[in-house]
Amino acid sequence: MLIVMDQAATQDEIAQVIAAVEKRGFTARPIAGGNRVAIGVLYNPGSVDPAPFAGLAGVKKVIPVTSPYKLVSREFHPESTRVRVGSVSIGEGSLTIIAGPCAIESEEQALTVARRVRQAGATLFRGGAYKPRSSPYSFQGLEEAGLRILERVRRETGLPIVTEAVDQEVYALVEEAADMVQIGARNMQNFSLLKRAGRSPKPVLLKRGQSATMEEWLMAAEYILERGNQQVVLCERGVRTFARHCRNTLDLSAVPFVQRESHLPILVDPSHATGMRYQVLPLSRAAVAAGAHGVMVEVHHAPEEALCDGAQSLRPEQFETLCGQLRQVYGTLHSETDGVDR
Amino acid sequence: MLIVMDQAATQDEIAQVIAAVEKRGFTARPIAGGNRVAIGVLYNPGSVDPAPFAGLAGVKKVIPVTSPYKLVSREFHPESTRVRVGSVSIGEGSLTIIAGPCAIESEEQALTVARRVRQAGATLFRGGAYKPRSSPYSFQGLEEAGLRILERVRRETGLPIVTEAVDQEVYALVEEAADMVQIGARNMQNFSLLKRAGRSPKPVLLKRGQSATMEEWLMAAEYILERGNQQVVLCERGVRTFARHCRNTLDLSAVPFVQRESHLPILVDPSHATGMRYQVLPLSRAAVAAGAHGVMVEVHHAPEEALCDGAQSLRPEQFETLCGQLRQVYGTLHSETDGVDR
Amino acid sequence: MLIVMDQAATQDEIAQVIAAVEKRGFTARPIAGGNRVAIGVLYNPGSVDPAPFAGLAGVKKVIPVTSPYKLVSREFHPESTRVRVGSVSIGEGSLTIIAGPCAIESEEQALTVARRVRQAGATLFRGGAYKPRSSPYSFQGLEEAGLRILERVRRETGLPIVTEAVDQEVYALVEEAADMVQIGARNMQNFSLLKRAGRSPKPVLLKRGQSATMEEWLMAAEYILERGNQQVVLCERGVRTFARHCRNTLDLSAVPFVQRESHLPILVDPSHATGMRYQVLPLSRAAVAAGAHGVMVEVHHAPEEALCDGAQSLRPEQFETLCGQLRQVYGTLHSETDGVDR
Amino acid sequence: MLIVMDQAATQDEIAQVIAAVEKRGFTARPIAGGNRVAIGVLYNPGSVDPAPFAGLAGVKKVIPVTSPYKLVSREFHPESTRVRVGSVSIGEGSLTIIAGPCAIESEEQALTVARRVRQAGATLFRGGAYKPRSSPYSFQGLEEAGLRILERVRRETGLPIVTEAVDQEVYALVEEAADMVQIGARNMQNFSLLKRAGRSPKPVLLKRGQSATMEEWLMAAEYILERGNQQVVLCERGVRTFARHCRNTLDLSAVPFVQRESHLPILVDPSHATGMRYQVLPLSRAAVAAGAHGVMVEVHHAPEEALCDGAQSLRPEQFETLCGQLRQVYGTLHSETDGVDR
Repeated sequence: MLIVMDQAATQDEIAQVIAAVEKRGFTARPIAGGNRVAIGVLYNPGSVDPAPFAGLAGVKKVIPVTSPYKLVSREFHPESTRVRVGSVSIGEGSLTIIAGPCAIESEEQALTVARRVRQAGATLFRGGAYKPRSSPYSFQGLEEAGLRILERVRRETGLPIVTEAVDQEVYALVEEAADMVQIGARNMQNFSLLKRAGRSPKPVLLKRGQSATMEEWLMAAEYILERGNQQVVLCERGVRTFARHCRNTLDLSAVPFVQRESHLPILVDPSHATGMRYQVLPLSRAAVAAGAHGVMVEVHHAPEEALCDGAQSLRPEQFETLCGQLRQVYGTLHSETDGVDR
Repeated sequence: MLIVMDQAATQDEIAQVIAAVEKRGFTARPIAGGNRVAIGVLYNPGSVDPAPFAGLAGVKKVIPVTSPYKLVSREFHPESTRVRVGSVSIGEGSLTIIAGPCAIESEEQALTVARRVRQAGATLFRGGAYKPRSSPYSFQGLEEAGLRILERVRRETGLPIVTEAVDQEVYALVEEAADMVQIGARNMQNFSLLKRAGRSPKPVLLKRGQSATMEEWLMAAEYILERGNQQVVLCERGVRTFARHCRNTLDLSAVPFVQRESHLPILVDPSHATGMRYQVLPLSRAAVAAGAHGVMVEVHHAPEEALCDGAQSLRPEQFETLCGQLRQVYGTLHSETDGVDR
Repeated sequence: MLIVMDQAATQDEIAQVIAAVEKRGFTARPIAGGNRVAIGVLYNPGSVDPAPFAGLAGVKKVIPVTSPYKLVSREFHPESTRVRVGSVSIGEGSLTIIAGPCAIESEEQALTVARRVRQAGATLFRGGAYKPRSSPYSFQGLEEAGLRILERVRRETGLPIVTEAVDQEVYALVEEAADMVQIGARNMQNFSLLKRAGRSPKPVLLKRGQSATMEEWLMAAEYILERGNQQVVLCERGVRTFARHCRNTLDLSAVPFVQRESHLPILVDPSHATGMRYQVLPLSRAAVAAGAHGVMVEVHHAPEEALCDGAQSLRPEQFETLCGQLRQVYGTLHSETDGVDR
Repeated sequence: MLIVMDQAATQDEIAQVIAAVEKRGFTARPIAGGNRVAIGVLYNPGSVDPAPFAGLAGVKKVIPVTSPYKLVSREFHPESTRVRVGSVSIGEGSLTIIAGPCAIESEEQALTVARRVRQAGATLFRGGAYKPRSSPYSFQGLEEAGLRILERVRRETGLPIVTEAVDQEVYALVEEAADMVQIGARNMQNFSLLKRAGRSPKPVLLKRGQSATMEEWLMAAEYILERGNQQVVLCERGVRTFARHCRNTLDLSAVPFVQRESHLPILVDPSHATGMRYQVLPLSRAAVAAGAHGVMVEVHHAPEEALCDGAQSLRPEQFETLCGQLRQVYGTLHSETDGVDR
């Protein structure tokens, strides 16, 4: 951390800042420049909270230097992590395609979609039993009955199941039924839920929050690892910006960034990012071309009947086209891109 | 809702959209313009989910017209709501000043600050017993011991207590100890927590989420009212934007907007919005001048020692100045602004 | 346009709105729903300015329906436009790779880079003679001397030249020297400059503004077409958001959106979008996979010596890798993606 | 500037970075922490461009420390600047109220509005003769005829005139007719225009760009001062964010920030910030309560007839209420706030 003093800071103020740093057990190194003094904070184990220093007399600004994450950091853990989900492995060396409807609506719907996506090449099945909805008047999911249907889908198709746990109370039910538990964008900083996920034996799919920085996202993963669960896959799903032509703005620069900073796998969800079917194919291809370890997309056999997010769901035949294109992009680039972009 | 068709949409496509609208029990009214047809959706009870229509063939875009909120809406409930918290009433006709430290650190700290802020004119006391922190390595609050200290503060000072419940599990403890339960910005769309708050006998202080639209915020309040708890106070605390000179961007336009659209009271928290002490006085005055029913600010008797957010905490003597200035601004404008700005 | 009335709007207020619509020569069609009246505005030639109606008594909100652009719109001009730049054609059916240094620094630098990028497969050469810099103390470009060097590059390498015109005063000089004139992000709504570009015989590369919506960007192009110059290529270069891990957030959803709404070609500039070399390869591949007609990237033979933006400039050998990868992605997908994504 | 090295950076890489710093004439001071080395860059006159260092081998990130502005900085010029505009002085110690229509439409309109706002207490008159419009099909202003009307307004009312110059070509005409030349938000980084303003004898009203950081805004002012014109007034007018309930998000934290960092006066324009009449009164009061030196608001005697931005224009009687409220807020707080908030 670097504490930059005002030009007009007095020797006394500088001495007080140094004392405040040393009181916390760190080393303070004053660096005199032409116009002002800056004070380096050294030998801190992990990152230092800038807040206590920012308000001291004579301080102009405090600049954090060390990243606050540790367990998720590639600096501390150079080899890429692969996460095992049922029979499938997510991460470097394979292309993951998670597909399924936004919400589980009925056994027939779930099985129909699951058979189609398995046939086309999906490697995992997704479907919401508990749905976080911005309106209390919207369909909130089939809940436990939905979990039973998801278990049936796994038995019938062999596809591992990804589904969301919306709170700690349902976590036990969800982790029992699912192969991988999703933590949704709105819950990315629900720290109680993250701690619960950290105690779970099941891998976690952690979506980026709607306006989360990279640091906040990696720190959310750090919460899970810190409690003991190392099996975390990150999923970029678009962020909130001024732009209005899509529901969110898909931020593909997250893919190279995460791969450089962290050892965890990263997927991309273009369906929620854009909210529009015609965007899903091109942006899925783009995600894989950017180096993502896979995508998660919504598929519905009859989108116009869907109880949730039909406008962004691919039809099964579009999903087939998607799988073919993604395998081509991945195949063409995979061997060569490896090791080049970091 | 208005469904705008492509210029090139066929009669068949138009007919299918009309059928889809009527299948859901609404009335479809086609409106032929010069270049294209639009289809009005009428006689819908509450707002209509645009998703199922957005993906139909020939549809260019779907434009929602009706606001999705109802119980919080001033259209359905024209008189302003006043929320009773212990001996205090929040809303039109009075100026609320909530003050206290970011986190409860010790009995001595809490009582010292509480006595100073009561003397200066605070009407409620705030202090975190459970702290949502972006790092698992940061101080997470004194938890239950913090609640006990807050109860002691109320006994000693008579000030009603506002403190945050970070999840459903602690809600019962918090609602028992506190006079008003805060739901923090990161939990604004934690719908399980909102439903729990809706079943509570205690009033709720609902902070705006970091990137929440007005509609999402009012819908979060709707979740609480819909479960039976009518005692909700909204609190603007800054939103996330590109700007970097403050921690968040305080959005004071939320104040006139909320007062026009909803009957619920609205407060402003300039401490979390800006993260910097020198901003708190001017933006608190601005909040009251904009018509807010009050402010919530952080105060610490020794900010440089604070375990959390010291840089934004006012010193007690600054808080005294603040109270004086706020009462002047409020006093000068209150009678005249009433009824003028809606 | 749809004018939505308050629930409490009187018959008189409705009548006044209708009169205001008709006074402007449009047709007003009142649509009575369950709770309120909305008034459709029909037979308007082009889009209608909502402003005069938004402030009328009894009006709740005004919702624009028609897009305001016309000449750039695919609805009015269904075939994709190809733009001719010197010997090269930009648009559907070919992959454009524009490369070169941020700024022209010397004849030797320009020629060295130009020879390397031509050899690797660049189809046009870029380089700034006039540089818009946020600080008056930064290098502002070689100006006219830079244009002379660019002419020399074309003579030596045969590559068509793209360079920026920063104002109307230099436009004549730039359009004489260059094969394509760039209008930079900061000038996207410099309407005087757009009108000047509209009178130019040379094609225009129009970058998206830092916080421009799709509508504003297409309207900026509309300014150019409206004055007579039909040769406009759009270039996405990242937008300003809360995210801080890259200089800007590259918005690849702009590619499918523009291709659906407009007939103009679209390129992507990952160098300015991210500001970091390690991001340029993955995001360039992503751009082509998303369907962009090409990319514009910065290349410098000695980035650590560059007078401008060295951190984002590729080294020549990285640019070779890039060209290879882009051709593979393009080759694999091109034939099949055609016609699928709109 | 601080150059933070990777944990794994070699001694060679560190030596190369030091050499690169020294080659540019600065002093490099390596600072060894527990895990990594950081290199301080010292004795740089003004800020240092981080770009050449960010791309060097072994560099993790480069952190600027010194602000790049100088002439506008309060550190270099501690006394507050007051800007003289005709008979009026803008800055500390007085409340400035600029009012008038968005666009000059006719002599009758301009004079009608001007007489009303002068009577109510406006201190300057605003009105656009040249209008930057996002559509080429919108009314672009009366241009030179508009300037003649503005001169007539000054003769009749005595109010100094503020009007916008949209490009260098019209600058001479505008500066001759006006008492203060406005540079609009879209032109805030039109550096050619800023240089032109720097050579003008007339004071400049510099609006904040739609997505400009504080640093970019102050650097835009620096361009003007650097060319010799010291008479610059800043004007906050809202920024572009995800929020949709107003046209832009008014950022009042800009007021205390600018007053701390710079000696230039700052005004606030709530009309363009919000785009809605009902927001203008509360946010104008908030601006003055936050310490702004004044406001600029749009007034029209018949907003429903306005050719531009009628929905945000106050009626004359609302403007009278505004003036009364602003004087009260200003009077109450002015003496006490002085010197407290910095």
